[in-house]
Amino acid sequence: MVYQQSLQIKTAGRGSYSITNEVARHVQQSGIRLGLCHLFLRHTSASLILCENADPDVRDDLERFMLRLVPDGDALFTHTAEGPDDMPAHIRNILTHSDLTLPVTDGRPNMGTWQGLYLWEHRQQGHHREITVTVYGE
Amino acid sequence: MVYQQSLQIKTAGRGSYSITNEVARHVQQSGIRLGLCHLFLRHTSASLILCENADPDVRDDLERFMLRLVPDGDALFTHTAEGPDDMPAHIRNILTHSDLTLPVTDGRPNMGTWQGLYLWEHRQQGHHREITVTVYGE
Amino acid sequence: MVYQQSLQIKTAGRGSYSITNEVARHVQQSGIRLGLCHLFLRHTSASLILCENADPDVRDDLERFMLRLVPDGDALFTHTAEGPDDMPAHIRNILTHSDLTLPVTDGRPNMGTWQGLYLWEHRQQGHHREITVTVYGE
Repeated sequence: MVYQQSLQIKTAGRGSYSITNEVARHVQQSGIRLGLCHLFLRHTSASLILCENADPDVRDDLERFMLRLVPDGDALFTHTAEGPDDMPAHIRNILTHSDLTLPVTDGRPNMGTWQGLYLWEHRQQGHHREITVTVYGE
Repeated sequence: MVYQQSLQIKTAGRGSYSITNEVARHVQQSGIRLGLCHLFLRHTSASLILCENADPDVRDDLERFMLRLVPDGDALFTHTAEGPDDMPAHIRNILTHSDLTLPVTDGRPNMGTWQGLYLWEHRQQGHHREITVTVYGE
Repeated sequence: MVYQQSLQIKTAGRGSYSITNEVARHVQQSGIRLGLCHLFLRHTSASLILCENADPDVRDDLERFMLRLVPDGDALFTHTAEGPDDMPAHIRNILTHSDLTLPVTDGRPNMGTWQGLYLWEHRQQGHHREITVTVYGE
């Protein structure tokens, strides 16, 4: 059995946004009890990540680390059409993930206790982001 | 239904090579209309990436960024048997992706408008690269 | 057909641990001949990687590279509750992989000649790590 739907997320600019509940809702709606849930982000300037879900400092530290690793406005970049955060957003995407797959057990995404699922917006401005959710199994 | 085939790509040295059309051809050939397409690169010195597909400067900037992040010939490395680009190629692979999964909708890989699929060769010399393509669904 | 089981790995602190044989055993046990094997690490301070499997220097160099890229005890980090390797472990996880999918062919994980599968422990102390293995296909 295959279930496929679109999940729309509106971001308010750079930062990470929990999507754990939205994804769980799709898995439940699929009626699939045992299998996998695939998430595909249809953009090259945001990411999907699994991250520690208890202390918000973790995601703040992650943001600061990434800003140091891939500085906005770095003179190295020639692709600057959409501003100083344009090319860094593409690199942040490639260094992390466009797609993630989660096990489905007993009709739910089966993650570890400390794992949360996040959409990570890399652009300074907010965007509408779309994730294709595919659940398959029995 | 499961479809599995080998996709052969010949590279001419370091750089990224579009494989969007080749992958679409395999998805069409599979006869699967709804499901997923999994790509597995059978090497540890190249990568599979999704990247912005409109402005070639993006991939040039990406290449320059990676060269700065993981310099060829870095004195840190002891694994240099195949040359100064040997160990950097392994690290580039691990910081990016060996496998990617794409949604399949209406018999086609269902990516975003600005997403292209690339094989990223990390070695200075050209290589024969092999990707195992698995399509499954209905 | 879907097969899902838990794989337990005990680590002895920071470093990479081969899990190729354990995963092959699960694929064989599943009875699935053609399809895919998905591995999901249920933790945010370790990783799953595919890495060159012949020369142990590769994984030593990788460890040194990552230590330089994400230094333990970096003053940038505020999330230090569990020590100087706490936040770096989360970042190492996000820069690499929590999940990997391998093709299954003739009842075996079908990797390239030089590819080995490793659990990469990022914490200084040993931990019990759990991987959810899902095999599906025919």
